[in-house]
Amino acid sequence: MQNNAINHSISVDCVIFGFDSDHLNVLLVERKLLAPDGSIDFADLTLTGNHIYESEALDDAANRILFDLTGLNNIYLEQFHTFGAPGRATRQPNDRRWIEAQGRDPKERVISVGYMALLAKRDVVLKYMGRNVDWVPVEKVKNLAFDHEEIMQTALQHIRSKIALQPHVAFELLPEKFTLGQLQCVFEIIYDKALDKRNFRRKMLKYPFLVKLDEKLLGRASKPAQLFTFDKSKIENY
Amino acid sequence: MQNNAINHSISVDCVIFGFDSDHLNVLLVERKLLAPDGSIDFADLTLTGNHIYESEALDDAANRILFDLTGLNNIYLEQFHTFGAPGRATRQPNDRRWIEAQGRDPKERVISVGYMALLAKRDVVLKYMGRNVDWVPVEKVKNLAFDHEEIMQTALQHIRSKIALQPHVAFELLPEKFTLGQLQCVFEIIYDKALDKRNFRRKMLKYPFLVKLDEKLLGRASKPAQLFTFDKSKIENY
Repeated sequence: MQNNAINHSISVDCVIFGFDSDHLNVLLVERKLLAPDGSIDFADLTLTGNHIYESEALDDAANRILFDLTGLNNIYLEQFHTFGAPGRATRQPNDRRWIEAQGRDPKERVISVGYMALLAKRDVVLKYMGRNVDWVPVEKVKNLAFDHEEIMQTALQHIRSKIALQPHVAFELLPEKFTLGQLQCVFEIIYDKALDKRNFRRKMLKYPFLVKLDEKLLGRASKPAQLFTFDKSKIENY
Repeated sequence: MQNNAINHSISVDCVIFGFDSDHLNVLLVERKLLAPDGSIDFADLTLTGNHIYESEALDDAANRILFDLTGLNNIYLEQFHTFGAPGRATRQPNDRRWIEAQGRDPKERVISVGYMALLAKRDVVLKYMGRNVDWVPVEKVKNLAFDHEEIMQTALQHIRSKIALQPHVAFELLPEKFTLGQLQCVFEIIYDKALDKRNFRRKMLKYPFLVKLDEKLLGRASKPAQLFTFDKSKIENY
């Protein structure tokens, strides 16, 4: 039986990355505090996250948060780091006031287990769940609540290490059908540098999980681009 | 000021690996429950770990555990994963009885942040701190308390990924002076397979942080072996 008591010491924060033709975005939630007269006291942004239930495994909590927002449950999700600096949830004045407005003690310690998720933004229809959630391009993210900027930056570093060893992970960001140009764009954004087109393509075309489709993308001004798909069943042994 | 209250929801467990000429060992602590008549009810082994203090950062808690056991504070230490399965601390009968004997509620949830440390076993003089601690070869570890076998196995997998990207991390396991044979032994143990000697040496000798000493190790039956050292100041940019 599910124990629906909430564990107030432990939360899960999800850094949900969504790629969109040429941008890496992160899913953020609006945190809005209303004054007694109903006017907006402050509004800022947080990562998607929540406290865990007493009977819930950490991975299950992260999956629940993802599912509640997207309705999807087969998304690439990975625990990457746990954040537990004392006072991490009350460093900024807004944080402290937010915690107090929730009826919680700002001195109470909360540690957060960080998860990252990778998906193709266009495959997702967001569910709003009573609070505004939206995609923000990673390079425009600033002034997040709590230590969420540190959590996001740590997630970005983690993806970089990850795809150096397991490049197929980057393919999770692409829609079902994609061009080699879009694929290169994903790698260039993650590594934050331009890559040589010929070398990149030569390397990628060796991976058995990159599968050429019998289909082309009709461009507006350019010639039609070959479409590919990501076959996860061919990830093993490359 | 240090807040010395203990946080009962969060612990840190350290998987301390120590290399010793041709074995990878892990540091374990004896957990011994005495019966009312003073006889031993049971005795088994756990990883080194502890609850954190309310005012203590996670990294600081891990460093404290390491320092208390070894007197060293410049050891390679890295957070690798957090373990939070409900009931993880009471799966085995001994676990439950141990928790109860400590006056704690077995239903109370504890999540553990896993850290791994790498060192040369011979550089360390263990401090016993009132409980028996000792090195056990990794391949002989069995029947650990709680979920500590899972934590140790996860740490081993983490080292494998880690040294594929940052091979210098494996050098932390070697004593100040070592031979290429010992270096190869470290990599073979971590990867759990034999490596080709010529290829291995060619690859290693390219690393600027592997520094040849003007010294040889006098073998008993074999010819003297060249000694090397690990120069951490040369890790950048390789």
